[in-house]
Formats: sequence, structure tokens, C-alpha cells
Amino acid sequence: MDYNGFFRDRLEDLRKEGNYRIFAELERRAGNFPRAKQYREDGEAEVTVWCSNDYLGMGQHPVVLQAMHEALDHCGAGAGGTRNISGTNHYHVLLERELADLHGKEAALLFTSGYVSNWASLSTLAARIPGCVVFSDEGNHASMIEGIRHSRAEKRIWKHNDPEDLDRQLSEYPKETPKLVAFESVYSMDGDIAPIAEICDVADKHGAMTYLDEVHAVGLYGPRGGGIAEREGLMDRLTVIEGTLGKAFGVVGGYITGTRELCDFVRSFASGFIFTTALPPAVAAGAIASIRHLKQSSIERERHQRVVAKVRRKLDAIGIPYLPNPSHIVPVMVKDPVKCRWISDWLMDHHGIYVQPINYPTVPKGTERLRITPSPIHTDADIDKLVSALNELWSECALARAVA
Amino acid sequence: MDYNGFFRDRLEDLRKEGNYRIFAELERRAGNFPRAKQYREDGEAEVTVWCSNDYLGMGQHPVVLQAMHEALDHCGAGAGGTRNISGTNHYHVLLERELADLHGKEAALLFTSGYVSNWASLSTLAARIPGCVVFSDEGNHASMIEGIRHSRAEKRIWKHNDPEDLDRQLSEYPKETPKLVAFESVYSMDGDIAPIAEICDVADKHGAMTYLDEVHAVGLYGPRGGGIAEREGLMDRLTVIEGTLGKAFGVVGGYITGTRELCDFVRSFASGFIFTTALPPAVAAGAIASIRHLKQSSIERERHQRVVAKVRRKLDAIGIPYLPNPSHIVPVMVKDPVKCRWISDWLMDHHGIYVQPINYPTVPKGTERLRITPSPIHTDADIDKLVSALNELWSECALARAVA
Ligand SMILES: Cc1ncc(COP(=O)(O)O)c(C=O)c1O
Ligand SMILES: Cc1ncc(COP(=O)(O)O)c(C=O)c1O
Repeated sequence: MDYNGFFRDRLEDLRKEGNYRIFAELERRAGNFPRAKQYREDGEAEVTVWCSNDYLGMGQHPVVLQAMHEALDHCGAGAGGTRNISGTNHYHVLLERELADLHGKEAALLFTSGYVSNWASLSTLAARIPGCVVFSDEGNHASMIEGIRHSRAEKRIWKHNDPEDLDRQLSEYPKETPKLVAFESVYSMDGDIAPIAEICDVADKHGAMTYLDEVHAVGLYGPRGGGIAEREGLMDRLTVIEGTLGKAFGVVGGYITGTRELCDFVRSFASGFIFTTALPPAVAAGAIASIRHLKQSSIERERHQRVVAKVRRKLDAIGIPYLPNPSHIVPVMVKDPVKCRWISDWLMDHHGIYVQPINYPTVPKGTERLRITPSPIHTDADIDKLVSALNELWSECALARAVA
Repeated sequence: MDYNGFFRDRLEDLRKEGNYRIFAELERRAGNFPRAKQYREDGEAEVTVWCSNDYLGMGQHPVVLQAMHEALDHCGAGAGGTRNISGTNHYHVLLERELADLHGKEAALLFTSGYVSNWASLSTLAARIPGCVVFSDEGNHASMIEGIRHSRAEKRIWKHNDPEDLDRQLSEYPKETPKLVAFESVYSMDGDIAPIAEICDVADKHGAMTYLDEVHAVGLYGPRGGGIAEREGLMDRLTVIEGTLGKAFGVVGGYITGTRELCDFVRSFASGFIFTTALPPAVAAGAIASIRHLKQSSIERERHQRVVAKVRRKLDAIGIPYLPNPSHIVPVMVKDPVKCRWISDWLMDHHGIYVQPINYPTVPKGTERLRITPSPIHTDADIDKLVSALNELWSECALARAVA
């Protein structure tokens, strides 16, 4: 077989569909976010990033950088081993304590990413609990889907954010059947938020565990940045709260929190936890600093929400349509991969504004969008520039405006 | 169901078998490796680490730390997004070029870890090439096994390091059937090395792709640290060479190298690549510095081999048995999880020597061992201390000596 020819053909298919991805090559400037240098074939340019998931700009916060510099000097670059074989550093242990505390749980377990935390935890729980059935929200992230798939447990998909459908499906199984309900708080592409209390009620009624991905909420919601479940006083109702250190906390890594036994069980059996080099101590140190800061400081969260509201207000004023939602994500729907790419390129080339086009497989085909993520470090001038560029674009291309 | 009770029972089973894992909590001291501070319930102690996979001590190398400090100041803590959505940093692009060059390939693709690089690449290749059959060495690492399993492709296990068995199994399939042969160069627990040329001959004969995991060889073998395939002049015969940035390179992360089309294909379709926050720019910068240094400098590799030889010679002199192999890994076989743990604790408590007991599931039950990894930064005094402690232990416990 001509393997390389096969790869080339599949890539050509993507190009024809408009789904071939081109990564913007950037260099963010610490102290100067959301500004970044863009490397282009024809040179370099300064751009303003409007699509980062470093939602609060914590990646440039002095307390985070300071902690990382110190740990780097103190402990060196990498962990030097898996957690079991010489790779457990004091900072990992401190970070796990910090995370357990953040979510009001007995214990926490660190992974190399949020992706791996979902994949490894869900696959281990669902595979190792005999007869476990997983009930997965249809909007769940790839990392959860792949974890459930990997477990080979029976899986039921329930309608997005629909506790009634979940209830119906759960009631098809006897109470004794082990069950795991997996869902997210803030769904990252549409920005909608799950009815956590209702889902927990339904899960409790049927004796199911609950697994909540708070990846797009930790650091951002709740008085200490514990996420939507903290904001709504529901943390104790979740069996597992999962999160990332790579978005609002500004570093990298992922984790679960839960009972001591659950975390110890996943620690002891999850291939994706056991057989991999631990996170660098400096990464753990940076995450600790970021979490501690955001536990005490709400300024970033408040300003974040104000900037989000301002962006929405200004888009409304000129009739640029976006998906309404109760979170911090502003999805401007384009619904065509080629147009979406074109708009994004135009913003970059004419205005130094970077908003990545979001296409398949991140969102379903036909729902392509510009996903705008305002942050507390975007200024009023940044907002005005963004909105006037979009206004110009909508006029020039005669794109549909929202009806007021 | 009582989920927590279930977890508790499974953990209790592990304890009874002697397979319950207790992580040593350490703080390596940059500039002072292989020394580390150990945090214990009863206080702190200084220990010498003899089981790190930071094989060359690059995790404390000034060029690596310097590069990381600079990138941290320059670009901040995290990447701030997935590779597609604002997370591609200039350092990622430079690192991918460096890696392609290291292995003499057209392209490279970065992942958050070696585990994820294996899991994501193998699952994507095997699942997306219609009818692909995977031929997996029976000694392959968990990350490869899970990747192949995840693909749901047909899988054949061939006898460890046995090209004849591979040949037999490959010949059961028509030449047109797409095939992927997956194996490692240095097997990390036994330290044996694959007959790469013979395996490639057999694979070529049957029109199979070859996928080589060089995780325990990159940085350590070959004139520029390209691994065993570089040392043996075989890099161009492998379809994919996979490696880690977390062991000899001393940082964290993983990668594959191959043709432009293959890397682009995995980049475009692998869930584990697409849906996760990119590595921090500072991590990429550290890895670049480490790779560049080890491309030019062979001192570390030479000294590494000398220290390994010296440890073996001294163990031979007192008759401590270890698994012979042509690599840098010195497995002292204990073959019992409880004894293995006991010896390890004794070394730690009486001599400040840390060698983690290796037990199930990292090695099969009944093959428990102390896996000693000498490094160029272990001194003659360190070696003498280790060997005399083992000597004392073997005498006190009347353990079997090797027959000279
Ligand atoms: C809902 C959700 N869960 C998990 C992840 C993975 O987290 P990480 O980027 O830390 O791997 C992401 C995005 O990357 C996500 O959107
Ligand atoms: C053979 C092999 N492949 C892959 C890995 C995973 O690499 P990483 O630690 O970078 O995840 C390991 C060990 O961790 C390994 O031993």
C-alpha cells in the first residue's frame, strides 16, 4: 500500500472541504498580553489575541512567573520520572492538596493535561467497575468521549443539558447497576452551562456517580474560583470534579478531585496516570501560585465579566449576531468553513486581530464560528478596534446583521 | 452500589499482594543532582537518587535552565490554547524542526508527553487506515498497547525481539493489507535492545510501516543523540521514530517524526493532539536547548556509559546478580513485591539511597526488581556507597549471590 499517498489524499479531502488547519505561529509577550508577535512567511507582525483560553491572563501574572523561576532554579527542568519512579516532587503533593481544597474534596490527582485527566479517569472508572454504564451528555468534549470509548463499558448518550432525558435513560437500568453520569459545566464552544443541581438530583435518584468537567470554569466562577459548582454551592454533590491548569490558571496540566479512595483507585490503576513522566516541578509551582492567587482575588473574575458584557453590548449595537449564553464565551456564528477562515485571515491581515476560525472536528460541520474570548486584560481600545473591524467586515461583505 | 467501598476493596487487594504503591516525595536540587531532599512523615532527609530517568542529568544543565528562564520571561507560563486555537508558539515550531533534524526526517509533531504521542499516533494511524493490521512486540509499553487497543484495528502480538516470529505472522496477510509494525529500541525494564535492521527487513518484505519507540534511547545513543536507529545508521528505514523530551532530554513532552504527510495526517486527525492545551513555550525552549546541546556534545553519553560499566563491574565483584543487557539499565531482580519494597525501604532508611521497587503493573508479577539507572553525574563515591549498601544487605539477608 502507498501509505504516504493515502495520507496525502486524506489531507487533500480536508483542503477541499475547507477544513485543513493552518496554525498561527505566535509568540505571546509576557507583560504585554494580549499582544503577541506573529511569525508569517513574509515577516513578523504584532497582533492582538482574541481567542486565547488563558482567560484571565494568568500566564503572565508576576506571582506565577516568580514561582516558576524559583522552582526551576530549585528543582531543575523536568520531574525526571513517573510519579512512582522518582518523579513525585514536593510541589506535586502541595498542588494536589491545593486542588482538593479548591473543590472541597478529600483528595486530588494530577495528570499531564486536562485531556489525559478525563481520558484516564473515565476509562479507568468505567472499565474497572464491573458492569458500569456510562451516561454521557451529547455535547461532551473529545477527551471524555475517548475515555468512555476506551473503557468499552456500555454507553448511553443523553440529550445535551437535558436532565429529563437523562432521567428517562437512567430509569431503564436497575438501581444496583453501577452508573456514571459524565458532563461539563461550561461547554466551551457554545458557552452554555449545565443544570448541575437537576442533573445531580436525577443521578442521586438512580444511584449514579457524577463526573463534572469544569475545565472552562475553574478559576473563573465561584468566590474562590472553584467553578460553577462552587458558585452554586454544589461541589459536595459531585462524585468527581475535573479541571485543567492550562486555561484560566494559565499554565498546563489537569486533575480530578474526589474522595481519597476514588483518587487512590485511579492513581493505582489508570495507565494514563502511571506510565508517563510527571509534570515539571516548575509547572506545578506555577499552578499553585495561580490557584492561590485566584482563591483570594476576585478582581480578575469581575473584570473578566465586565469585559465580556462590554463586548456583547458593542456587538449588539452594530448588530453582529452571536450565540447568547450565560458564560464568558462569545461565539460569532459563520456556519461555513471557507468563509470563517476568510474572515479570520482578513482580521489578521488588515487589523492585526487574531481570532482563530473554529471548524470541524472541534465543532460539527455547518456550525463554524469565530469564538471570541474577552479577557480582563483587553482594554476598551482593544474592544473598539475589534468591534469596528467586524463592523467594516460585515458591511463590506454584506453579511447578515442581527435584527434588533 | 457502594462505589467508595468498591474502591477501598480493590486498594486493599493491592495492599495484600504487596502491589500498593507509595510514592517517594522528593525535591531534587538543581546543581546538586543526583541529590534530592526527601519529605517523610518524620521530617526531611537528603537522599541520592539511583532510579531517575533524567538519565544524563540534563534537567539541571545550565543551558536548559537558562533557555527556560528566558522563554518564561519572554512568553509567560502556558501556551494559552490548543495548537490550533492560539496555542502554537514560535518555540513549538523551532522544536519540531529540531526533532525532524535529529532523526533525519522531513517533519515532527509535538505532543504533551511520550505517552500521548504513542497513544494518539498509533490509535490514529491504525484506526484511520482502512483494514490496517497492527503487529505489536509483546514487550511494548502501555502507551503503545493502549493506542493500538483504542484504534480497534486487528492486532497481532509477536514474540519479543523475534523477527522470525514477526515474519511468520506478517506472511499470513496479503501484501496489499495495510500493516504497521510497532516496537521499541531500548526496552526500559529489561534494558534489552531490538534487532532494528532485521525487523525493518521483515517489515519491508511484507510492505509494512515501522513505528519505533526510542523513548529510552534518544539523547543517549548515536553520535548526535538520535537513538539506537541513529547509532546503527537505520533512521531512514523507520516510517515513524517516536521519542520523549522527559527522560534523557530532562524536560517533558513527546513527539513523532516521519514524512511531512504522515505528521500532517496525525496533526489533522489525532484527538489526543488536537483537543489539548499545547506545551508551555518554556518547556519547548528547554527541550530545544537540551537537544541542541546533546547533538554537539558526546561527553555526557560517554561518561554515562562509563558509569554504567563501573556499576556493573562493582556489582559483579561482590556477586550481586542483575539482568545482563547492552544498554544503560541495570535491573537487579528480586522477584517478589514485598521483598523488593523492603530492600528499597532499607536502602532509603539506612543509607539515604533511593531506588524505587518496580512492581506490577509496570512489570509482570514475579519479576519485581530494583531498576538502577546510573548517570554521568553519579560519582565514584556514590557508586561505592550504593555497592557497599547492597553488599551489606545481601549478607544480612542471605540473599542469593551470582555464581562467578
Ligand atoms: C471541556 C474540555 N475538557 C478538557 C479539555 C482538555 O484540557 P487540556 O487542554 O488541559 O488538555 C478541554 C480543552 O482543551 C476542554 O474543552
Ligand atoms: C517505552 C516508553 N514509551 C513511552 C513512554 C512515555 O513517555 P513519557 O514519560 O514522555 O510520557 C515511556 C515511559 O514513560 C516508555 O517507557
